[in-house]
Amino acid sequence: MDFVTVIGLFAGGLTTVGYVPQLLKIIRTKSTGDLSMTMFMILSVGVFLWLIYGLYINSFPVIAANAATLCLTVTIGMLKIKYSKQRTKTK
Amino acid sequence: MDFVTVIGLFAGGLTTVGYVPQLLKIIRTKSTGDLSMTMFMILSVGVFLWLIYGLYINSFPVIAANAATLCLTVTIGMLKIKYSKQRTKTK
Repeated sequence: MDFVTVIGLFAGGLTTVGYVPQLLKIIRTKSTGDLSMTMFMILSVGVFLWLIYGLYINSFPVIAANAATLCLTVTIGMLKIKYSKQRTKTK
Repeated sequence: MDFVTVIGLFAGGLTTVGYVPQLLKIIRTKSTGDLSMTMFMILSVGVFLWLIYGLYINSFPVIAANAATLCLTVTIGMLKIKYSKQRTKTK
């Protein structure tokens, strides 16, 4: 594996793993009020397009990173919906 | 400009623009308690590495998108620090 691919994989690893602390924080606090739902919706569509782009340019780091990131941003978005609804119910 | 570059630019546009609603929400509410600082720190380092990767593979969408995203994630991170400190002071 060449040096450039290693940088790409490392970059992809970080921009994917980066969402994990946010996901854990949501699971721990069940609070998502300060998070922008619009952000997670736009990011998910964008990450999906990066995945398509990665397939076209045949870049393994771009494909792998964005496939994993998509799972995380969609999960965070769904938890945001879940906890926003629960908050509305308890009010 | 070929079709693949257009997809890449569109993807990069979305994963960059995606952070704008979060930034506006922070400016409006001055509340960042639910945001994970670790997320924005890891994402910023990751996006910086994507920028380096983009320069190596000479991909204009990867370079442009990540340069702009880096500005946004760093700004959100700094606002998170700012408003966390203010909250601590007023407590």
